[in-house]
Amino acid sequence: MTAEQFADRHIGPGPDDERRMLDIVGYASIDELMDAAIPEVIRWHGRLDLPSPASEPEAVAELRALAARNTVAVSMIGLGYHGTHTPAVIRRNVLENPAWYTAYTPYQPEISQGRLEALLNFQTMVSDLTGLATANASMLDEGTAAAEAMTLARRASKAGSRVYVVDADALPQTIAVLAGRAEPLGIEVRVLDLDVEPLPAEFFGLHLQYPGASGAVRDHAPLVQAAHAAGALVTVAADLLALTVLRPPGEIGADIAAGTTQRFGVPMGFGGPHAGYLAVRAGLERMLPGRLVGVSRDAAGAAAYRLALQTREQHIRREKATSNICTAQVLLAVMAGMYAVYHGPDGLREIAARTHRMAARLAAGLRAGGVEVAEVAFFDTVTARVPGRAAQVVAEARRRGVNLRLVDADRVGVSCDETTTVEQVAVVWAAFGVDGVDGQVPEGLPAALARTSDFLTHPVFRTHRSETSMLRYLRRLADFDYALDRGMIPLGSCTMKLNATTEMEPVSWAEFADIHPLAPAEQTAGYRELVGQLESWLAEVTGYDAVSVQPNAGSQGELAGLLAIRAWHRSRGERHRDVCLIPSSAHGTNAASAVMAGMRVVVVGCDADGNVDLVDLDAKIDAHRDTLAAIMVTYPSTHGVYETGIAQLCAKVHDAGGQVYVDGANLNALVGFARPGRFGADVSHLNLHKTFCIPHGGGGPGVGPVAVRAHLAPFLPGDPAGAPVDGRPAIAAARYGSAGILPIPWAYLRMMGADGLARATGVAVLAANYVAARLREHFPVLYAGNKGLVAHECVLDLRPVTKATGVSVDDVAKRLIDYGFHAPTMSFPVAGTLMVEPTESEDLAELDRFCDAMIAIRAEIDKVGSGEWPAGDNPLANAPHTAAMVGGDDWPHPYPRSVGGWPAGMDRVGKYWPPVRRVDGGYGDRNLVCSCPSPQAYES
Amino acid sequence: MTAEQFADRHIGPGPDDERRMLDIVGYASIDELMDAAIPEVIRWHGRLDLPSPASEPEAVAELRALAARNTVAVSMIGLGYHGTHTPAVIRRNVLENPAWYTAYTPYQPEISQGRLEALLNFQTMVSDLTGLATANASMLDEGTAAAEAMTLARRASKAGSRVYVVDADALPQTIAVLAGRAEPLGIEVRVLDLDVEPLPAEFFGLHLQYPGASGAVRDHAPLVQAAHAAGALVTVAADLLALTVLRPPGEIGADIAAGTTQRFGVPMGFGGPHAGYLAVRAGLERMLPGRLVGVSRDAAGAAAYRLALQTREQHIRREKATSNICTAQVLLAVMAGMYAVYHGPDGLREIAARTHRMAARLAAGLRAGGVEVAEVAFFDTVTARVPGRAAQVVAEARRRGVNLRLVDADRVGVSCDETTTVEQVAVVWAAFGVDGVDGQVPEGLPAALARTSDFLTHPVFRTHRSETSMLRYLRRLADFDYALDRGMIPLGSCTMKLNATTEMEPVSWAEFADIHPLAPAEQTAGYRELVGQLESWLAEVTGYDAVSVQPNAGSQGELAGLLAIRAWHRSRGERHRDVCLIPSSAHGTNAASAVMAGMRVVVVGCDADGNVDLVDLDAKIDAHRDTLAAIMVTYPSTHGVYETGIAQLCAKVHDAGGQVYVDGANLNALVGFARPGRFGADVSHLNLHKTFCIPHGGGGPGVGPVAVRAHLAPFLPGDPAGAPVDGRPAIAAARYGSAGILPIPWAYLRMMGADGLARATGVAVLAANYVAARLREHFPVLYAGNKGLVAHECVLDLRPVTKATGVSVDDVAKRLIDYGFHAPTMSFPVAGTLMVEPTESEDLAELDRFCDAMIAIRAEIDKVGSGEWPAGDNPLANAPHTAAMVGGDDWPHPYPRSVGGWPAGMDRVGKYWPPVRRVDGGYGDRNLVCSCPSPQAYES
Repeated sequence: MTAEQFADRHIGPGPDDERRMLDIVGYASIDELMDAAIPEVIRWHGRLDLPSPASEPEAVAELRALAARNTVAVSMIGLGYHGTHTPAVIRRNVLENPAWYTAYTPYQPEISQGRLEALLNFQTMVSDLTGLATANASMLDEGTAAAEAMTLARRASKAGSRVYVVDADALPQTIAVLAGRAEPLGIEVRVLDLDVEPLPAEFFGLHLQYPGASGAVRDHAPLVQAAHAAGALVTVAADLLALTVLRPPGEIGADIAAGTTQRFGVPMGFGGPHAGYLAVRAGLERMLPGRLVGVSRDAAGAAAYRLALQTREQHIRREKATSNICTAQVLLAVMAGMYAVYHGPDGLREIAARTHRMAARLAAGLRAGGVEVAEVAFFDTVTARVPGRAAQVVAEARRRGVNLRLVDADRVGVSCDETTTVEQVAVVWAAFGVDGVDGQVPEGLPAALARTSDFLTHPVFRTHRSETSMLRYLRRLADFDYALDRGMIPLGSCTMKLNATTEMEPVSWAEFADIHPLAPAEQTAGYRELVGQLESWLAEVTGYDAVSVQPNAGSQGELAGLLAIRAWHRSRGERHRDVCLIPSSAHGTNAASAVMAGMRVVVVGCDADGNVDLVDLDAKIDAHRDTLAAIMVTYPSTHGVYETGIAQLCAKVHDAGGQVYVDGANLNALVGFARPGRFGADVSHLNLHKTFCIPHGGGGPGVGPVAVRAHLAPFLPGDPAGAPVDGRPAIAAARYGSAGILPIPWAYLRMMGADGLARATGVAVLAANYVAARLREHFPVLYAGNKGLVAHECVLDLRPVTKATGVSVDDVAKRLIDYGFHAPTMSFPVAGTLMVEPTESEDLAELDRFCDAMIAIRAEIDKVGSGEWPAGDNPLANAPHTAAMVGGDDWPHPYPRSVGGWPAGMDRVGKYWPPVRRVDGGYGDRNLVCSCPSPQAYES
Repeated sequence: MTAEQFADRHIGPGPDDERRMLDIVGYASIDELMDAAIPEVIRWHGRLDLPSPASEPEAVAELRALAARNTVAVSMIGLGYHGTHTPAVIRRNVLENPAWYTAYTPYQPEISQGRLEALLNFQTMVSDLTGLATANASMLDEGTAAAEAMTLARRASKAGSRVYVVDADALPQTIAVLAGRAEPLGIEVRVLDLDVEPLPAEFFGLHLQYPGASGAVRDHAPLVQAAHAAGALVTVAADLLALTVLRPPGEIGADIAAGTTQRFGVPMGFGGPHAGYLAVRAGLERMLPGRLVGVSRDAAGAAAYRLALQTREQHIRREKATSNICTAQVLLAVMAGMYAVYHGPDGLREIAARTHRMAARLAAGLRAGGVEVAEVAFFDTVTARVPGRAAQVVAEARRRGVNLRLVDADRVGVSCDETTTVEQVAVVWAAFGVDGVDGQVPEGLPAALARTSDFLTHPVFRTHRSETSMLRYLRRLADFDYALDRGMIPLGSCTMKLNATTEMEPVSWAEFADIHPLAPAEQTAGYRELVGQLESWLAEVTGYDAVSVQPNAGSQGELAGLLAIRAWHRSRGERHRDVCLIPSSAHGTNAASAVMAGMRVVVVGCDADGNVDLVDLDAKIDAHRDTLAAIMVTYPSTHGVYETGIAQLCAKVHDAGGQVYVDGANLNALVGFARPGRFGADVSHLNLHKTFCIPHGGGGPGVGPVAVRAHLAPFLPGDPAGAPVDGRPAIAAARYGSAGILPIPWAYLRMMGADGLARATGVAVLAANYVAARLREHFPVLYAGNKGLVAHECVLDLRPVTKATGVSVDDVAKRLIDYGFHAPTMSFPVAGTLMVEPTESEDLAELDRFCDAMIAIRAEIDKVGSGEWPAGDNPLANAPHTAAMVGGDDWPHPYPRSVGGWPAGMDRVGKYWPPVRRVDGGYGDRNLVCSCPSPQAYES
């Protein structure tokens, strides 16, 4: 009595499709294909030891049971995580809408204008509220944003010091992350109680919390001045809701602001994901890490958004990079920005005022009852002193359904938020054993720090006050964009597979969404069991012994893995091992992570086929034998090939005392067929947003667990909220990172089971080889391994046609938009190429539609080459074509309109039209505008 | 400490907008406007006695508390309601997607191709599975579908008999609904146990259940032959899932099939909504009631869908109508059709086979344990005989979380479905006190009745097997359509207001979705409290004394109200009162309902202003004084005017012994300002999908509660599952009708409160008068009441311009699509006019965008009038313009492309493009095709 198999829904091609694809590729079965493609030396012939696959309803039932073991309490713990009301229209139409969550990073701006506009709203919101010139498009969380601020300060400061001063009233988890980041970089984090301790004579930067973790609102202006006098830069980690009523960092002279936007409508999710933020004063914008959206113009001169200053990104700078951040938290940033759009400045002020009134009421009641509350200014949080009684008060409140913060034996912290009610305040009073007060209570906000400047003055924050208007704005922006719900996104190395609805739905459940990361253990049993199962399944899949899900992006997973290697060497007295070998073909993030982990990067060459040059490897190992810490390789390689030398490579490095790091970016080509932890690697990070179905969300959230063999397990990330443990730095601000979305990979693994996962891998490899086989005669396939086979992606070499015709890889990528596709990865790993990864989720019809489009484009290129179409004015050069262009009154082009709009006989119905023509990135970089331009700016 | 008011989100215009609108209309405040607009004689100056408004989070918390008082048990009750797995991709992307649920009825086919295709899939599915030629686009439920089949049979039968024979093994609620419908029409329903009782000599129709309510699968072919020999038509009420494995009705000669598609992925919802179905053999298609989608062609000759045979509809035929059905269950039909698309024929067969295997296993175990199970063939349901012990068995099962059917003291029914597990079967065994069996069990399906014919052969049922493919298909269809998430739908009399997400979300909760209508009372306490509160609030809003939410469409509410009047007259010995006065301006449904209630329709004339002609009223009352049963009026009138004579009208009718029925279609103009139950009416039906925010869903679900004064309360609809009560016929198949969506109006009323509701009414009236004021100089506003004011809608008279220029109301409606709008109501209540109802949810910017479009269109009309543009080839005649047309290689028209595609300087970005050009309805009616055409048919 078999129920329906989820794998049959996840995997696109059915049995008939598979047969037809195998015929083209030339194999009788997927097993035979995989036997040929995967080098026997790494091939694993076992069967993953996972629970037998659950049907969708069964998986949901199990998740419901896990969810039921979490308790949704009233959270007044604070510490950067607050209750918030997600506007339902935003939850349903952003968080739960595949048009938003299945979108890719907006590298192709023409088909990403919707999320780029939403991110520009986010940047404008952050910039306005912090009073600083430029904000980026979000960071991973407050802790890592603060860490990026620290390294930015170090780059920008002229002070020669290695000391970074941190306010003792900073969030504990921020201090933990700062400490973890500082140590390998040789930075000394000095935590000072600045109310009583003086600033040191020399320091390069100062981190202040505003309001403090205790709730105290201090005038930081004198400290800012003192820091500037010392040549240091100042970061203010500020609460954005408080900034609607408090003087913002920019107005007290801060150089940088960092923080989180979680309380702007993003559920706590047991710690994440949510969008951190980072903003800087004028003059520092080109030093900002992460993604930055800016305004530019398109080929017709119309305003158009795109990622600005992309040359800063780590994949360009590699080992000279100053940050390894290569993603953002786009989906969550969109939500937070839309929260501001929906509430507007007046609404946010009202929410802040209500929140503050609750805190003021709470404080007044405690004082009236004889509880000591520090006589300082506060916004939403008060710290009460109950000598020796704190644990009892916290326990009593918990019994009544309210979580408070146990600061220490004598102090209890209580935070209010927009969800706080008078009834909840009364419960807190009761827990303290006081009666409370009625009537008016004094305000706790200092008049001298009252915000006087306006903010969110752009019309977008003043227009969408009704739900109807908001709904339409969200739909309009969604319609601008191309996501997986429209068609294939064949991005090499990004594994844009199905994000199944059954995997996604639990993310919205209150029992997963509304849990504070520091909620007591008895309230999070379901979460912890889920995390435990997920970690164990990931260990099984990868062949490692231990996994930590803490890193909330692949880049953080890399750092965590390298830090584990570093700590291991140190634990063995080999502190001098600091060389990290990185093949020239590696993703730039690898090198950046190595630098952040305090390692020196040494590049190993690749041969003409893109494989690691084992001869050069020998030479590099010889040259650095005594200091060799690790090698970092991607497998299958970034060229999409199963390198046969991998086992040899591992052995060589191990023999020299180094560790092997296998970047898990391409794990989708291995699951069920090879296990890095068993073919020689010591550590990998995974990308749950690639192989394990967390949606890309338009450029985040990502989750990048780190997986290690047993000897490295003691060096996995530590708990940012716990006591520091040597060699176990915190990587993210929350212990389980982006816990709120871990039900997604859990459900995927639970429903696929061992056989489903292996079949997915086989079909992914089959699909890539099918595409390669169909396109090989039109575009050379650049790299191949055993028997001419590629792994799960293939690189199409456009350089010969570019040389012959002038048609660039860019032209082809943009022309694919006209055909109804997202472009493949451009010019990575090799300039002038396209890398195609179809994944297992695309069915044969869609694969064929793509191949047909590429073949038709090749014919178009030939018309340019033959001179039939002029080089500067042809469908490729003019791509993408907008509806306004194709239907414009003028048509000066030497090809018919229909060729522009509906090439190769495309169906004239239901076409996706990009809203803008080709975007001029350079113009925007030269004329940097990174917040919402005035409406007049759009007039041509 | 006020929380945000939901009313501020529901109502579009803010305070500034309101002031600007009032300036144009010429009033200082909304109160002043309403004082002027509403006749004092009906004006109510009280304040609704409703709970003070809840914020969105508060309302959700209360709904969560109500939901928690429902118990989701395993339902094995059967009787037409079964557990089903809604595919998550369909739930999220149809049921929870505003692009589907906020759409209107597809009267404008050019902007409704997506849902029309989805409905054609539904029709094809029903037609294929039943083996009959033509299926309509859904019915309200199985009971009412069966009732429509009965009246259809009567019309089609040449037998002179009044007798309709009904299988005693029919669903009890179907028998109840048939009885209720038959009585006023003079039909005698004769329920016979056809296993033992012979057919009568004369009868016009026969209703058979297949499989029977008992689970028995009988070969009905002999009965069909016997009925045909008697000149009777045969309806087979068939379970569609069973029809994947059983010989379908069409193959045993049935004329009609009726039933429900609930178990095709639509949650039970405590009784509804779900899509009933009705299918007929060739030759009866033009007699089908309800909506029918057909294939036609557009102006370019391309295949295009639209509602077929619309001239059959009751609003055309009025008192000659044979059905009052004027809506369908589109949203649910879309879901059911997509369930078939997603599973395909093989998947459905597998689900049926699994379901049957569970039932067979169950039966085998019971027999092995000595329980008597009737030795008949069965599909999913078995009836077990446990003399004297049935209640105990049912109670024992319930204690273990499983609901069974208590047939009588000796018998228990058990139904399996696709959700049934072996564990649940074991629980049932345990409840019976038997051990069950292991291993193979004999099948219960009769080999002689095995289905041999193929079904769902169209490619659409064989293509979308992966979730990715399904998701894209749903997105593609959604993108074809225009719904409230794109812009205003200013449909007069249809009140297309916001369907707020907070109102919608609870519909998906299992505690509301997964409840059988016959679940025991202790499992439905939350539901019953919600219904009770909703009914009491609706009574307060309308000023009536009692409300029943049972009618699952406005038409059913009308019938229920008229039947209450009829029963009341009879209860007073005035059986002869059977005349129903209906003004000539009335909606055609009114007359049809009166006929169905066994009344004779007498039309009352209207004056030039569209008001009821009180002189003619006097004359008609005089002529029918002794037989006068009722008058049925709409208030405000269908002309959108507050008639001042309403109180007089009520008095005159009452004086003559009649009752006053006020059609609540236009209640949105009254809430908080006038209460029909207090200004003279005796009964009204409401439209919860108009005034109370249930979304239109593309043409259903609707909910049409009936509200009455105290003297009529004893005659409200009875319980279809209970013992029949004289004068209280069942109107729908489930006691609370479409209970599953009642959380929507509950939430709306709970969040708006008395003041919010009144403000909504005021703003709705202001908006209509604002539109009238802005457009009056461009198009005459046809009717007005006090001081030239309209109520909540206004009628724009196009007849003068049509006469002068030849530009028709159709041309203007279609041209509005080019401007990005759904057309207003066309040619109702007066041919050649447009009726505009903006509602309170549209903000000023959208109202202005609409007015600007209408003014620009007026200028375009003038260009046709002046001869600048030829009559047959201008932007109006060619509207709507598709992208394919505007961007086509040829452009033979005497105006620029940009005028076609982006008139009046519209933004060139983000335009909605209809997928087809103007649809030729007549062509399709002449060449009727009502199931999916082969792909070749689309080749031109």
